[in-house]
Amino acid sequence: MQRKATPLIDMQSEPDFRRIAIDRVGVKALRFPMQIRDKAHAVQHTIATAALTVDLPHHFKGTHMSRFVEVLNEFGPELHVDKIEKLLRALTRRLDSQAAHVEFEFPFFLEKQAPVSRAVGLMDYTARFSATLADGEVDFIVTAIVPVTTLCPCSKAITPLWIEEMIRLVEDSASSELYSLLKRPDEKAVTERAYENPVFVEDLVRNVAARSDREPRIAWFRVEAENFESIHNHNAYAVVERERTSNQ
Amino acid sequence: MQRKATPLIDMQSEPDFRRIAIDRVGVKALRFPMQIRDKAHAVQHTIATAALTVDLPHHFKGTHMSRFVEVLNEFGPELHVDKIEKLLRALTRRLDSQAAHVEFEFPFFLEKQAPVSRAVGLMDYTARFSATLADGEVDFIVTAIVPVTTLCPCSKAITPLWIEEMIRLVEDSASSELYSLLKRPDEKAVTERAYENPVFVEDLVRNVAARSDREPRIAWFRVEAENFESIHNHNAYAVVERERTSNQ
Amino acid sequence: MQRKATPLIDMQSEPDFRRIAIDRVGVKALRFPMQIRDKAHAVQHTIATAALTVDLPHHFKGTHMSRFVEVLNEFGPELHVDKIEKLLRALTRRLDSQAAHVEFEFPFFLEKQAPVSRAVGLMDYTARFSATLADGEVDFIVTAIVPVTTLCPCSKAITPLWIEEMIRLVEDSASSELYSLLKRPDEKAVTERAYENPVFVEDLVRNVAARSDREPRIAWFRVEAENFESIHNHNAYAVVERERTSNQ
Amino acid sequence: MQRKATPLIDMQSEPDFRRIAIDRVGVKALRFPMQIRDKAHAVQHTIATAALTVDLPHHFKGTHMSRFVEVLNEFGPELHVDKIEKLLRALTRRLDSQAAHVEFEFPFFLEKQAPVSRAVGLMDYTARFSATLADGEVDFIVTAIVPVTTLCPCSKAITPLWIEEMIRLVEDSASSELYSLLKRPDEKAVTERAYENPVFVEDLVRNVAARSDREPRIAWFRVEAENFESIHNHNAYAVVERERTSNQ
Repeated sequence: MQRKATPLIDMQSEPDFRRIAIDRVGVKALRFPMQIRDKAHAVQHTIATAALTVDLPHHFKGTHMSRFVEVLNEFGPELHVDKIEKLLRALTRRLDSQAAHVEFEFPFFLEKQAPVSRAVGLMDYTARFSATLADGEVDFIVTAIVPVTTLCPCSKAITPLWIEEMIRLVEDSASSELYSLLKRPDEKAVTERAYENPVFVEDLVRNVAARSDREPRIAWFRVEAENFESIHNHNAYAVVERERTSNQ
Repeated sequence: MQRKATPLIDMQSEPDFRRIAIDRVGVKALRFPMQIRDKAHAVQHTIATAALTVDLPHHFKGTHMSRFVEVLNEFGPELHVDKIEKLLRALTRRLDSQAAHVEFEFPFFLEKQAPVSRAVGLMDYTARFSATLADGEVDFIVTAIVPVTTLCPCSKAITPLWIEEMIRLVEDSASSELYSLLKRPDEKAVTERAYENPVFVEDLVRNVAARSDREPRIAWFRVEAENFESIHNHNAYAVVERERTSNQ
Repeated sequence: MQRKATPLIDMQSEPDFRRIAIDRVGVKALRFPMQIRDKAHAVQHTIATAALTVDLPHHFKGTHMSRFVEVLNEFGPELHVDKIEKLLRALTRRLDSQAAHVEFEFPFFLEKQAPVSRAVGLMDYTARFSATLADGEVDFIVTAIVPVTTLCPCSKAITPLWIEEMIRLVEDSASSELYSLLKRPDEKAVTERAYENPVFVEDLVRNVAARSDREPRIAWFRVEAENFESIHNHNAYAVVERERTSNQ
Repeated sequence: MQRKATPLIDMQSEPDFRRIAIDRVGVKALRFPMQIRDKAHAVQHTIATAALTVDLPHHFKGTHMSRFVEVLNEFGPELHVDKIEKLLRALTRRLDSQAAHVEFEFPFFLEKQAPVSRAVGLMDYTARFSATLADGEVDFIVTAIVPVTTLCPCSKAITPLWIEEMIRLVEDSASSELYSLLKRPDEKAVTERAYENPVFVEDLVRNVAARSDREPRIAWFRVEAENFESIHNHNAYAVVERERTSNQ
């Protein structure tokens, strides 16, 4: 399956007669350094796992895999998040395609203070950018995976929405948020807060959905909760997906 | 987040006023023994990882998680694949819902002979059943993950299609299929066959798409290929999805 | 890196002059059907992920990978746990080696009753057999991964110890065991029991260690606990390993 | 299992009467930003997954989990690799223990040129630092996971050994190293080079072992190779571990 390409003719550009267009073709599982902007420190260095794809019309035999890597490296050695739109346009241009799609998943850190002791610790989240360029338009979806029973809200924003804001929206909807550093009086406070305020997965997705629905910058959202329940051998799960509408 | 449920009233059946229906709610990541039929031995024992969900109308507060597990256990200690439709109907009935969705992913074995030495070995695949009951109709999708550069075809069949047939369809589209047991003359034969017949991910998804399109029992399909290329640090990837149509 | 083996001479048996013996060489990540005995149903069908290795003296160039698979398949289509010693001996004989080592990791199920409602559900565990043949002696280690904050006790038994017994030993040392099926009064009982009886990872490994130390059939043990704490973004962890000794 | 810590007395420091010392206790699976030095750019920003543990004498009831996180955060917001020894000493001091052990696993990047086209791309590796402080002495082990059939050499160096040097040592022992960016003439060259120079897992571990044995800065090493063979459904595996000795 190796691209052995014995004779050095440009096989990928040859015509193809099976008349089957390919929806997405490209590279996946590529790690790349990235710079993310956050509100507190202006810039955060992280490592993303990337996927870069384009559409392939039925009359082309194949794509040029090395060009995807080449285009990405031109935005290196650290890809800045603000360059994602430029990257999409560079991909369609270089791969001679109509549409391009990129995904970057990466760790994201926030400094948090414990509720009682005020001890400060770095809390890690996982975030994902998915961006699609089609018909000249860019569609940008941000996903944050927030560890309150593992909640994944995705949303498509009309105007920028900070990853921090999505995390906050989720953490405010849960029994209690998580912390990196908790001293004993904090643990007591957090455990009691969660105990007083039980939130099931159904409540959690509804709470986040209701808040997202009131956020004018969000055009579409998907909220998924999975609870690694500590007394069962399975997880509780719930999902809500919808176009935002103030009066549904 | 634990379902602490302090007072023993049936909270889940209480009315909810947020007016947000939940698309899917239920249990995930549940391992369960399963019996699969194969052509050769009539029955194959395997272990599935299951997800069972239903829809939740906006006026219900929550679902009853334990009922999902209870319904599944009524089909145990080994769930037979032929009972999946019954399981879906039992879930909607017991959870008082309109739609139900189940997924089972499991290892599946085929006995294969090496091409030259005829040595026999057990070759493992991963297969998945996804079944949805909505408006009284059952929709059944079978996915097989076939390790020729990791190819995942999914298809929705009108009349039964054996997992073995899907695996064969994919393996016939690749440079060379994989084997469990190969003696040295077999390795030589297999390596040469792959070398003579290079198939890129683009070819692979098109070959499988073309064959699926000629199979009258298939109503819809999705073919996804990912090649863990041995000379790069990333994977090549391609996908085609479509309704089957003899004359596209 | 493919075993291309261009000319069909037996390269693997040729002499090697680098004078470096290989500690373990063989095959890994091989799925194979297996039969486990349990106390309740006599036999349990499962799917193991296997690793089979032997030592390779410095004067041999390589091993014959296909023979490992061949030997395993001779014990198929379902390997019975009682045949592991025979398998080790067959490996050393066929690979012409002094020592052999095999590992099988597999899901294992127990039927459990909820504490109050008496509802019955299948609870899944992960178990592992590691067996080594060296100098004619077989060393057999059983590991059970028990989901009370993920506890892994391994032990080397002098006379047979059931997987069920290891699971019981762990579950009796925890705040509360997990269940597959719990009705609401059960959830209340289990949550309260855990709340009344907090057990930290330090307590858990010590409790299991103390019980293992009193079990005359255990010659050596290792107890490892990892707690996926629900209010932190990290896990608490503890481990104790020792030869059993009634009076330490 | 939550550290509920109902009354605010310092339970962890209370005496314990089970007379069982705990080998290692602490926190695991903690993500933290890290700065690594490389030869080319002086500093590389990465994200590590960390584990921090200490020993716990039998007369102490428990450890103080929050102190591990607190100590780590004092070395933040980005831990510099040169501070690992200081971190170990701070852990023993703060946790009142004799020994401490830390592990950091992280992605590491090298800029590489394709062999023919000279195109430049970022190639990713995974590296790991394991450091132990016991009896006042620090033992430091570096592991690099190099994707030539996934090879993991670990080594304990007497004087500093760069991660780059370990990667080079492995890549020079393989059929052909991997690249991030290869144009078609490069792919042809790399594939042919690998084809001309087949290296089995046995050869690979021996080649790396022989080179490590000639490196005076290495005191101990362990070399592990796993080949995700493209024509089988299992992996070939080999391992060599030894104290370095120029004349064995």
